[in-house]
Formats: sequence, C-alpha cells, structure tokens
Amino acid sequence: MPSLYNRFAGQNIERLAALSDGIFAVAMTLLVLDLRVPAREAVHTEQDLWRALIALSPRLLVYLMSLMTLGIFWVGQQTQLNHFTRSDRNLAWIHIVFLCAVSLVPFTTSLLAEFIQYRTALLIYWLNIVALGGMLYWSWSYAVRQKLPAEDISAEVHRAVVRRIAIAQSLYAIGALLCVVNTYCSIAFIVLVQLNYAIAPRFCWWTRNQE
Amino acid sequence: MPSLYNRFAGQNIERLAALSDGIFAVAMTLLVLDLRVPAREAVHTEQDLWRALIALSPRLLVYLMSLMTLGIFWVGQQTQLNHFTRSDRNLAWIHIVFLCAVSLVPFTTSLLAEFIQYRTALLIYWLNIVALGGMLYWSWSYAVRQKLPAEDISAEVHRAVVRRIAIAQSLYAIGALLCVVNTYCSIAFIVLVQLNYAIAPRFCWWTRNQE
Amino acid sequence: MPSLYNRFAGQNIERLAALSDGIFAVAMTLLVLDLRVPAREAVHTEQDLWRALIALSPRLLVYLMSLMTLGIFWVGQQTQLNHFTRSDRNLAWIHIVFLCAVSLVPFTTSLLAEFIQYRTALLIYWLNIVALGGMLYWSWSYAVRQKLPAEDISAEVHRAVVRRIAIAQSLYAIGALLCVVNTYCSIAFIVLVQLNYAIAPRFCWWTRNQE
Amino acid sequence: MPSLYNRFAGQNIERLAALSDGIFAVAMTLLVLDLRVPAREAVHTEQDLWRALIALSPRLLVYLMSLMTLGIFWVGQQTQLNHFTRSDRNLAWIHIVFLCAVSLVPFTTSLLAEFIQYRTALLIYWLNIVALGGMLYWSWSYAVRQKLPAEDISAEVHRAVVRRIAIAQSLYAIGALLCVVNTYCSIAFIVLVQLNYAIAPRFCWWTRNQE
Repeated sequence: MPSLYNRFAGQNIERLAALSDGIFAVAMTLLVLDLRVPAREAVHTEQDLWRALIALSPRLLVYLMSLMTLGIFWVGQQTQLNHFTRSDRNLAWIHIVFLCAVSLVPFTTSLLAEFIQYRTALLIYWLNIVALGGMLYWSWSYAVRQKLPAEDISAEVHRAVVRRIAIAQSLYAIGALLCVVNTYCSIAFIVLVQLNYAIAPRFCWWTRNQE
Repeated sequence: MPSLYNRFAGQNIERLAALSDGIFAVAMTLLVLDLRVPAREAVHTEQDLWRALIALSPRLLVYLMSLMTLGIFWVGQQTQLNHFTRSDRNLAWIHIVFLCAVSLVPFTTSLLAEFIQYRTALLIYWLNIVALGGMLYWSWSYAVRQKLPAEDISAEVHRAVVRRIAIAQSLYAIGALLCVVNTYCSIAFIVLVQLNYAIAPRFCWWTRNQE
Repeated sequence: MPSLYNRFAGQNIERLAALSDGIFAVAMTLLVLDLRVPAREAVHTEQDLWRALIALSPRLLVYLMSLMTLGIFWVGQQTQLNHFTRSDRNLAWIHIVFLCAVSLVPFTTSLLAEFIQYRTALLIYWLNIVALGGMLYWSWSYAVRQKLPAEDISAEVHRAVVRRIAIAQSLYAIGALLCVVNTYCSIAFIVLVQLNYAIAPRFCWWTRNQE
Repeated sequence: MPSLYNRFAGQNIERLAALSDGIFAVAMTLLVLDLRVPAREAVHTEQDLWRALIALSPRLLVYLMSLMTLGIFWVGQQTQLNHFTRSDRNLAWIHIVFLCAVSLVPFTTSLLAEFIQYRTALLIYWLNIVALGGMLYWSWSYAVRQKLPAEDISAEVHRAVVRRIAIAQSLYAIGALLCVVNTYCSIAFIVLVQLNYAIAPRFCWWTRNQE
C-alpha cells in the first residue's frame, strides 16, 4: 500500500499535459539548432550558397524524420491522456520517463545526422524510438489496469491502441534490421513508415486491415 | 474510411494550442541567440562598444522582421483555432507541419542575417513565409470542409479569412520579386507589409477595401 | 473602423497568457546559458575550481538581477491580464511587442555581464526595462480605454496600477542616472529597487505611501 | 498591511503552474545540450563511435540524475499547487525563487559532469537541491499560514508533506557528506535515494514507516 504522500501526489493530468507540450515544443525547436548556417568565409557567390545549402540536405532529411517522430508520439501521447480522467504518481513517473526519451531525440538525431553511415548511430536512434513506444505502451497498460480511463472505453478502443503500438514498433524494428544492407535503406524505410502514420492514406490495403 | 485509432486520435484542440504556443515561444526566443554580444577583445572604449552594436543593426532588423512574422502567424493561427470547436488527427497533422515551418524560422532568419545580400537567402526566407501561409490556408479550408468550426461562422467570416491570406501572400510574393532589384528593397517592402498587418492603420485606402 | 478580419482576430486571452508564460520561461532559462562552466584545462585542484567559480560572481549577480526583472514584469503582466475579460488584436500586438522586449532580456543581460563597466551596456539594459514598463503602461491604458477589464475595476485599482508603473520607472531612471558615478552604483541601486518590489517589505515609509 | 497593488497582484495560480511547466520543460531539455555528439574527426570506424559513446557515460549518468531531480521536484511542486485554491504575490515570488533554482540545474549539472571528481562541484549540486527543497518547504508553510490550501486539508496531509521534505533532504545531506569518501559514493547514494522516490517500491521497511 502506497504511503499517504504518494496517494495524493501527481494527480493533475493537465499539468502533465502542459509539461509534455513544453518538452515537445522545446525538443522540436532545438532540432533546428542542428541545421547550422553555412560559414560566411566559404561563400562568395549565389552558387556557393546553393551548394552549401544542398550539402545540408542529409541533415535536413534527418531533421524532418525526427520532427515526424516527435509529431507521431505527441499525437499518440495526447490520444492516451485525453482518455484518462485522472492521473496518479506512477502514471506521472511513466510519462516523465517518456519525456526523458523525448528530450533525448535532439541528441540521437544529431548523432545520426553526423554519422549517417554508421550502424551504431542508427541503432541508437532506433532504441530511442523503442523507448518512446515502450513507455507509451506501459502508460496505457498501467492506466487500463488502474482504471484511469473514463469508463466508456470499449475493449475495441483498447485493442486499437495496443495494436497500433505493436504494428508501428514492428515496422520500426524491420527498418532497424535493414541496416544490415546499409543505413540509408533503414532511414528510407523508417521515413516511409512515418509518412504512412502522418498522412494515413486510405488506399493502402494493410492500413484498412489495421482497423 | 479512417481506421478506428485515427478516428479518436488528436482531438484535443487545447493541447494543439499549447504545443503551438510552446513552439512559437521557443522560436521567438531562439531568434535572439543570433544577436551575439560583441567579442570582449575588440572593445576597449565606449565608442568601440557603440560601433560594435551599430554593426549588429542589420541582424537586429532581420530579427525584428522575423518576430513580426511569427507574431502575425501566431495571431492568424490563434484566430483559426478559436473558431474550431474540435480537432481531428488530420487537422493536428496540418498544424504539426505548420509548426515545423515555425521552427524553421530561426534557421531561415539566421541565414538571411548572415547572407543579407544574397537572393538565395531571401528566397528561402520567403519560401518559409509561403509555407506558413499555405499551411494556414490548408488548415482553414480543411476545417471548413470537415465542419470543424462552430456553426455560426458566416460565409462572410470565411471570405475574410481566405482573402486575408491571399492578399498577404500576394504582397509577400511582390516583396520576394523585388529582389531582382536588390535584397534590401525586398526586405524593406516585406517589413512595410508586416507593419501594416501589425499596426493595422485605418487611414489607408486598400485596408478599408479589405473589409 | 477596423476590417472584419481584425474585428475577430486575436481575441483569446488564454493563448496570449500561454505564449507569454512560454516566452518568460524560455527567457529565464536561457539566462543561465550565460553562466558558462569553467574550462577543464584551467582547473587542476579544488582551489582552482573555487577561484574559477568566484570569478563567475559578477555574471551571477547580473543573472540574478535579470531573473528578478523578468519576475517583476511577469507578475505585472499577469496582474493586468487577470483583470481583462477579453482581448482584441491591438491588445494582442501590444503584448507581442512587450514579449519582444522580454525575449531581448537575455541579450541585454549578456551584454551587461560582458561589459559591466561600460555605461553603454548599462543604458541599453535600462532601455530594455523602459520598454517593458512602457508596453505594460500602454497595455493598461489601451485596455481601460477599450473597456476590456471587468466592469468592477474601481478608479482606485486603475490609479494603483498606473502609480506602480510610474514610481518603478522613476526609480529605474534614477538607477540609470547613477551611472555618471559608475555602473556598479547603478546596478546596486537597481538591485535594491527590485528587491523592494520582490520582497515588498512593510517597514519602509514610502512603500506605505504607495498604497 | 500590504499596498493595494500588492493585494491584487499575482493571484493567478494557473499562470504560475504554466510558467513552472515551461521552465521545467526548458530546463529538462537543455540538460541534453550537454550530451555533445562526438567529434567527426576522431571517429573512423564503428568501434571508434562505440568508444566515444561509452566515454559519454559519466555525463549520461549525471544527466539522468538531474532529470530525476527535476522530475521529483516537479511532482512535488505540482502536488502543492494542486492543494491551493488561490495564490497571492508572496507565494508567486516564493515560486519564482524556486524556479530560479530549477533554471540553475542545467548549470550545476554541467559543472558536476565536467568536474565529477571535485567535491566543490558536488557540494554546489547539493546546494541546488537544498535550495529546491527549502523553497518548496517555505511555499508550503507560507501557504498553510495564509490558509491558501482548500479547507479540507487535514493535519495528516500537512504532516505528510513536511515529513516528506525533511526525510528527503536528510538523505540528500547524507549523500553530500559521503563525498568525504569520494564523489562517486555521493552520486551513487543520491541516485539510489532518487530512484526510491521515483519508483516508490513497497517492499522496503522505511518507506512503509514514512506513511
């Protein structure tokens, strides 16, 4: 049985949402700090500037991939918190660990942008995504066990959330495995998976089957 | 037909507003990081310090222009979200892309401040503004199609929003075109357009006609 | 008469508060970036580290002064917005300009910390404070003119707000003038004024008279 | 008796919460800036990259310790503010000072990461934790004296909050004292204390006694 203090600590779900929005906002904006403006000395003509900007494009790709990652997990966390009517200190701590993983995204992004051909960098980036997905799964299963969601949550909604996380994480794992070919394959696959979740096209067979 | 998960994801318009305020706040404050304090070694007298600060003035101009840009689009986005009674995941994603464009403003500002005489830098800055305006237009037209705004939105309000975006973007395009003369003309024109939207003077003929 | 768009733009006072809290939060935290950790190479013993940290103390003083400045104006802005029941786009823009001045505080603080003996740096810091106070005064007088505050605001409250700003700004101006002696006098005086507003001691004669 | 202005200033507890969430969010994310990506030049193989990342592990440890510190005090502050039905300007200022201590955490963390074997760095880190705990204690005792919490707060809740702060601070003090052996002992002990508060295991004898 938890101590009295722990029974009334961390119950404010709105402050949890506010902290999350703050951390997502800062993390999303810090990603851009990695897009460094070309050095003045190396640029003498418009062509030089174009070339310097084109040289930034792998960084820009990784930056956009990370923005999508953060966007996907922001929508995912929001969707969960919307279903909860209250919080408790354990849920608060699960989400604080989730937010640690969010705050690490600028670091793992920067690592991947700097060492885009290294499998180590890609695997660390993937571990970050695994941590994000894992904490969201833990948050949902803990909340369901503690009956934190509003009562009208059907078994169907529960299955939809769990399946969503499981399928997405399987796809990310396939993406990570593709680094045995090379890291560009992995990145391309992960970007496609993310575009699928962001755009949610309706034509594709397996999206329909996820329903 | 969207999957079940997508039907209940991303519906919280208050968290969308909170994420937006966070990203605007960080982007507006990061702009200042570009105003670097003069190096200690180069300054020995009060005159040296004045001169070093005056040398910062082009950066200060670009900084103020970007703050106005962010202010204008913050007011624009707020005005839209105020009219919506609910969100859905597509609207959430349209605004996440909008916020990506917001988070790129410190980068494009820094690029323009560093390469103020280069047309490339100016065009990239303008493309950033186009992206901001385009996403707001998309957000509004998507929301109207999906009947997300409260029911009492008149056709008149709808036209006012659309016209506002169209006229502003046309003026920004004229500003960008002026870079065939030189980039300072472009910047001066864009600053005037922005001052017009920020101050909203009542004496001018075409503002009245925008009503 | 303002255009239709301008009549319904920027009315959400809660989002104005959220943007303000975000900008104050980022500005307050960015101030710390100026407290740089001593270089590893220069430190070989505990004594070296103490000495390096003591060398940071002027920066720490300026940092604390700026935190108090931001705290004072945060309380001031909050107090105003609490009295308003609605906003309009002009008020939103007055506060965006106020927030620009807030976002400049890390820059002027950094300038003062780096050039603590230079009157130029002190005067620019003071101008920043003047801008903060001036915008809050403008915000209040605009809001009163437009009848934005709730109706039960007495003339007494109105006078209290105006007097508060006037007395504080006079004291800051005296502080700035003291730089004809030297800048340390100015800083000491400004810190004392700020401590008075933060701590609000009850023993002092003129505080009672401000009632 | 406070002046009229001070009687109506700083009463909005929601804005205090929003500012706090913003500052915690920025401080938590800025911690990561200290995890610098290894330099490109020093890395030629996957093994080099692994080695460079393993060399980051002391920083990673200090980073995780600071995230837990911030998480613990965020939950602590939230728990207090949840119990208050209103604020006043003194409470606002107590929390602004608390937030100053929060904003200093990235600095003291960085100092400890850089000088992990120096007792000075550890003691300054500990003083930061003392400041956080001390301000929370002051906030609670001030609020109870001013009857700011909702009326249904029992003496039992009051004792639980006070005891929690007292026990935690005693444990941190023991951790700091352990630096007479060496700083790694201190850090290990502090991390264990924090894990205890974050995870709140139920098997341990003295946690039960804290009830």
